[in-house]
Amino acid sequence: MTTTSTDTRVVIALGGNALGDTPEEQIERVRTAAPKLLDLIMQGNEIIITHGNGPQVGMIQKAFTYAHQDDAAIPQLDLPECGAMSQGYIGYHLQQAIGVALHKNYKRWHVASVVTQTEVDPDDPAFENPTKPIGAFLTKEQAEAEMAAHPDQVFVEDSGRGWRRVVASPEPKKIVEAPSILNLLDNEFIVICTGGGGVPVVRDYADKGAYKGVAAVIDKDLGGELLAEDCGADVLVLLTAVDHVAINFGTPEQVDLTDVTVEEAERYLAEGQFGKGSMEPKVAAGIKFAKSRPGRVCIIGSLDRAGEAMAGKSGTRIHA
Amino acid sequence: MTTTSTDTRVVIALGGNALGDTPEEQIERVRTAAPKLLDLIMQGNEIIITHGNGPQVGMIQKAFTYAHQDDAAIPQLDLPECGAMSQGYIGYHLQQAIGVALHKNYKRWHVASVVTQTEVDPDDPAFENPTKPIGAFLTKEQAEAEMAAHPDQVFVEDSGRGWRRVVASPEPKKIVEAPSILNLLDNEFIVICTGGGGVPVVRDYADKGAYKGVAAVIDKDLGGELLAEDCGADVLVLLTAVDHVAINFGTPEQVDLTDVTVEEAERYLAEGQFGKGSMEPKVAAGIKFAKSRPGRVCIIGSLDRAGEAMAGKSGTRIHA
Repeated sequence: MTTTSTDTRVVIALGGNALGDTPEEQIERVRTAAPKLLDLIMQGNEIIITHGNGPQVGMIQKAFTYAHQDDAAIPQLDLPECGAMSQGYIGYHLQQAIGVALHKNYKRWHVASVVTQTEVDPDDPAFENPTKPIGAFLTKEQAEAEMAAHPDQVFVEDSGRGWRRVVASPEPKKIVEAPSILNLLDNEFIVICTGGGGVPVVRDYADKGAYKGVAAVIDKDLGGELLAEDCGADVLVLLTAVDHVAINFGTPEQVDLTDVTVEEAERYLAEGQFGKGSMEPKVAAGIKFAKSRPGRVCIIGSLDRAGEAMAGKSGTRIHA
Repeated sequence: MTTTSTDTRVVIALGGNALGDTPEEQIERVRTAAPKLLDLIMQGNEIIITHGNGPQVGMIQKAFTYAHQDDAAIPQLDLPECGAMSQGYIGYHLQQAIGVALHKNYKRWHVASVVTQTEVDPDDPAFENPTKPIGAFLTKEQAEAEMAAHPDQVFVEDSGRGWRRVVASPEPKKIVEAPSILNLLDNEFIVICTGGGGVPVVRDYADKGAYKGVAAVIDKDLGGELLAEDCGADVLVLLTAVDHVAINFGTPEQVDLTDVTVEEAERYLAEGQFGKGSMEPKVAAGIKFAKSRPGRVCIIGSLDRAGEAMAGKSGTRIHA
């Protein structure tokens, strides 16, 4: 297949770290990123953009934690609400930046940010063993007080630096707003959605099937992969800070990968070639996507060379 | 005209005060509100829902102000970013609650929250004379320090209670995301949008026509009115805590209005019959909408009796 033909549907995932730590930085970063994303649009692709939100959710949660300590009238916010806020905050800046880039290049398209929930299974084994640290470091006494006040919260000691809350990282099962996303996409919108992998929700069948937020972290690469599957995408582009996935990274034998089969990628993954929490989840998401339907391709590459990666001139392609 | 026929397009505006002060309250309030909104959907109308965000933006801004004082690494957030966060936060809960109500009643529809910007004119005279107080009360010394640090910010003394920042309340000119909203609506989505009147933005023609956030407050009733105009709505429903608009309010001569012409409403408005900042802006928005196109009707009524108001059995109708 060629991935540069017209009407190829592409999900592009941006890292939350690429967005900076303040509103000013975020505005600047997305303004820089937008023309690079537009390179993909100009190649005639249908575009869905998703993004990480780790630093932004951390910022929002910390702000409310500190503020609640100063003034009890300001509520504590749990992760789902922080995630929803981060989607509004990041989507707003991204849609402005992409709007500018469109305005100068390709006016026919519009851009829309959709608040997105991602369903997870309440029986996911991850909930039995929460491992993902979030929030501020506390003393043992503070952590014990928090656990007494919130019996559903788990705190663990984190490598001598103090106590931190841990939450589950369950497998994403369904992008709840996929119909909205598809509807906009079918009408030539660029859609921004599923920020931070989506706000994790579970379905409460005892309460009319209501979706309810759960304090959990969805791996953003797996969230982007599910988004690509649920929206019938042909290509999943995971953008990061480097141009290629490498094996034997940082040794004289380092090899930058340009094109790997699923089998090769699985072998490298089993060898532990990729950094935990950085390249490993991206390669795992790429394998899952490439295996999900014949012809699907995952490209892992740098934001700076996104257009070239899409055109096969940069990046690492994972395919069947 | 009848406003209960199939395919009447309706913009419903909920007050921010109706949403409560904490995430738990908000979840409960929107769960209570959703079936009442669904009454309007079940009558066969196309529905756009907008909402205030005053208390929520205040909460977010205060949280970041306190947190920045405690930890300079947490940035201060200005109004546009607080507004965008509030749209994610409120939209998330609203779409969950409406989803539950739909799930039990009328499964064909979906619900989507769209992050919305509202364009204002940078030359709007309101920017010369900011009047809308926001944020915490400060001492004179604190206010002077803030003005020195942020020369674009204006603080004024507020009735002996301290100094407060004031921002402009410019007239909303264009719902930037109207194409996204219309596109979803045309495909049988219930759309949640334009929270808090939309994030106020101005177009910067010196910078590629970029939309940029401005620290301003858009009157949510006027924002809802513009949304209704820009989306070609037939009916604007402004929901509040009371069943009717009244004249001679709180006197033995109080009369609840059920049906008024634009001319009557304008006369009552000129007489100062309506509370500033409560009923007056609603009636003004209703007059503007009813005058904007023949056949348009504004209904002001209570959330509790939204379905009856739409059916002409409660509320106050303003029409040509």
